[in-house]
Parts: sequence; C-alpha cells; structure tokens
Amino acid sequence: MAPLNVAVYLFPKADILDFSGPTEIYSARPLDGSPAPFKITSFAHHNPVPADTGVLTYIPNATFAEIAQKIEEFDILVIPGAMFDTIADLVKSKEGKELLALLQKFTNLKPRQESGKRVLQSVCSGSIILAASGILAGRDATTHHLGFDMLKQVADEAAGGDSKINVLKTRWVDGGHTEAGVRIINAGGVSSGIDTSLFIVEEVVGKEAADWAAELAEFDRRTTGYAQKA
Amino acid sequence: MAPLNVAVYLFPKADILDFSGPTEIYSARPLDGSPAPFKITSFAHHNPVPADTGVLTYIPNATFAEIAQKIEEFDILVIPGAMFDTIADLVKSKEGKELLALLQKFTNLKPRQESGKRVLQSVCSGSIILAASGILAGRDATTHHLGFDMLKQVADEAAGGDSKINVLKTRWVDGGHTEAGVRIINAGGVSSGIDTSLFIVEEVVGKEAADWAAELAEFDRRTTGYAQKA
Repeated sequence: MAPLNVAVYLFPKADILDFSGPTEIYSARPLDGSPAPFKITSFAHHNPVPADTGVLTYIPNATFAEIAQKIEEFDILVIPGAMFDTIADLVKSKEGKELLALLQKFTNLKPRQESGKRVLQSVCSGSIILAASGILAGRDATTHHLGFDMLKQVADEAAGGDSKINVLKTRWVDGGHTEAGVRIINAGGVSSGIDTSLFIVEEVVGKEAADWAAELAEFDRRTTGYAQKA
Repeated sequence: MAPLNVAVYLFPKADILDFSGPTEIYSARPLDGSPAPFKITSFAHHNPVPADTGVLTYIPNATFAEIAQKIEEFDILVIPGAMFDTIADLVKSKEGKELLALLQKFTNLKPRQESGKRVLQSVCSGSIILAASGILAGRDATTHHLGFDMLKQVADEAAGGDSKINVLKTRWVDGGHTEAGVRIINAGGVSSGIDTSLFIVEEVVGKEAADWAAELAEFDRRTTGYAQKA
C-alpha cells in the first residue's frame, strides 16, 4: 500500500506535544525495512515557527500556500492546539481565516481514490479552530478539559446561534463523517493526541500497525475514547 | 524559588518525543502567573537539527560550545535517544566524544548552591550515550526495551571489562548519585520520558508541581519506575 499522506500544521506558540506526539506515532515504521505506512509533511504560515516555550523552534517542510494548493493529496490533516488566548488570536487573524477556509475545503473533499481515507484530526484546543470553521456544528466533540466552555462558545458563534455541538469529556471523539466522507476526530488535551493518533492508525491502517507504533514508543494505549461509528 | 535551569541536547535524527516530552513537562507553568519552575535551553552541535523523521527540523537556542562552557549553571541535563545505529555512530564521532566529555564533567560538578539539585536525565537509547561515558558502571540503569543488550555491551566496553551495570526493565531508573552529588536518572523508551520528567519534577520541585504538569498535559502518570533512594 502506498503511504497515507499526513500534513501537520504548525503555528507560533503551538503546544510542542500536541504535534510532536502525532508525528512520533505516524512516523513509526517496521524494523524489517518494509514501507512506512505514513508520509508526513509539516507546513506553516511562518518560518521559523517558535513553539510555546521558545525552547524548540521549527523549520517547516513547506509553506501554508504550498500545501493549501494541493490539500486534496493529503489523507490526514493534523491541527494542534495552544494556550486558549493564542487560539483566540489565531482564528481572528488573516492567517487564521486562511486556515479556517482550508479546513472547510478539506472537509468537503471526497477521500482520495488511492487511499479511500480522509481524516481531519485536532489535538487539544485545536478543536476550537475546527469549531470556528463551523465544522463541529451538530457533532460530538472534545478538547482540553479547561476548554469545554470555549469550544461550545466558539462553535455557537460560528453557527450564529445554537451550534448543537455536544462537548464530551473523553480521551478522543470520533465525530463521524462529513457529507463528502471526511472523518472528524478530536483529541482531548495534549498527550491524548498520542492515544488518538494510535486510534487513527488502527482505523486507517490496522491493529498491527497501531500496536507496533505503541510498542515502539512504549506507550500504554488508553481506549476510553468515544468512537462513534458513523 | 529561582527556576531550575534545564539544558536539552539535540542531535540529528534524535527521536522527537524523547526530547519533546520532557520539554513539554518542564515548560508547564502555573496559570496564576506565578513563576515557572524551570527555564529550558536547547543546544546542539548542528543548526538546524533534523529530527528522526525529517518532518520536524529544529533551531536550537544555543551551540554546544556555548552551553559546554557554562554547564555548571544547569541543574538538569537531558540526553534524548535515537535509533540504535544513530547512537552507535554518534558516540564514535568527534561530536560524540565532546558530548561524553561534557557528561563526565557534569557528573563531577557539585549541585549549584542556589538550587541544591543536579540531575543527568537520559531518555530511551540516550542512556547508551551515558554508558559510553562510563557513568553507568556499577549502577542500575534502563533504556528502550529493544536496547538492553546494547546498553550492557557499551557500558562494558567503556569499563574495559565487566561494568557491573544492572539493566532493569522498568519505566525509569533512579541510578543514585555520583560522588559529587549528581543524580543519574534513565527513562525507558520514548514516551516513558514523560513519566520520568514528572518523577523528576516531583523530586526537585514537589508533588504539587508534578501533579499540575500531568493535569495540564492530561497525562496519566505511571509510577512503576525503579526509584533507588541513594
């Protein structure tokens, strides 16, 4: 099987573990030299991109514009979170508006024929960015446990009224498919992005690949996520 | 209390989560605006530093030489791991020799008077770098579960015979203090660096700070490490 293409969006002050956890899991490859199940690309409006603490600063693989113009080639799009004020500022900015438009476009694309899969994955307060794009209206969703109220508020603002978002306290939420067939999956806070990525690996590649990625990372999977079979 | 100074060494192909996990934990700060317990600096022989997958490339805060010449100012030194061939190549290289010399110097420094703490922390196969420096001779130690044999072999080579290293399968090992008073703590594989960092936060700052860092990262601490009270 050709690898599934993963795009990871980076932005200034994004939480380190929110995007490093999924990147670690999706980059696990068999030791026998057989092909890696995923090919990962990081992209950003900025270069370099300082993470939340200023300790780790990143050079992304591609610009936002480069990935945006070929977003249909990507099977999984990862949106990390940050402190809540950073998220609030981001969604109001010009870059944020471009990101929201990209999320809307992505969720309206049918899965690639070659892969048959398309997943929009948020981690932590990244789901608040999804909410601002209107994608979470009428869906089950989650975020960092300190952000439940903000998630609902932003979803309602985007809907111009009651968004009918159903915010759940859980490790991750599989919010079902969009009409085009894109699966919307939110992780809870920070480290739950690791569990969520393992759930996604299991769903899109298989249990063996997910178990191997967990073993390699010596990570005890928690399976308390809310997996809605849509 | 003035923050404890943490230095995180980065090298090409280092495992992302090995250094991002500890950086996430040490960067947790109280939401009430009170001072952060740690101040973290990344340093490297290279700039930029490509991580294992090529997805995330880093700009370190400082050069190896800059940190090496003031290493006595750092209370915690974090050494991440990588695939085993990368570690084998590193310890034989000129850069690796400089790193081994720095580890030997660090473990011979008394704790800073201001902090009273000094910890050398490895994550995953990073403990094999410590073994190559001779630091683990006669100590309990651990590493990634696929690296137990290599850890003993490298420790024995450094000792020129039986190093009397005692390799344990556990989440982390507190290997006790050096004569100068530097505590040697090894994490097991990859994600266990998060548990280990929480253990260290609890030991050097306190339980409240460790519990808060775990809550913020939504990380269920595992307390199955081997904590030798030296």
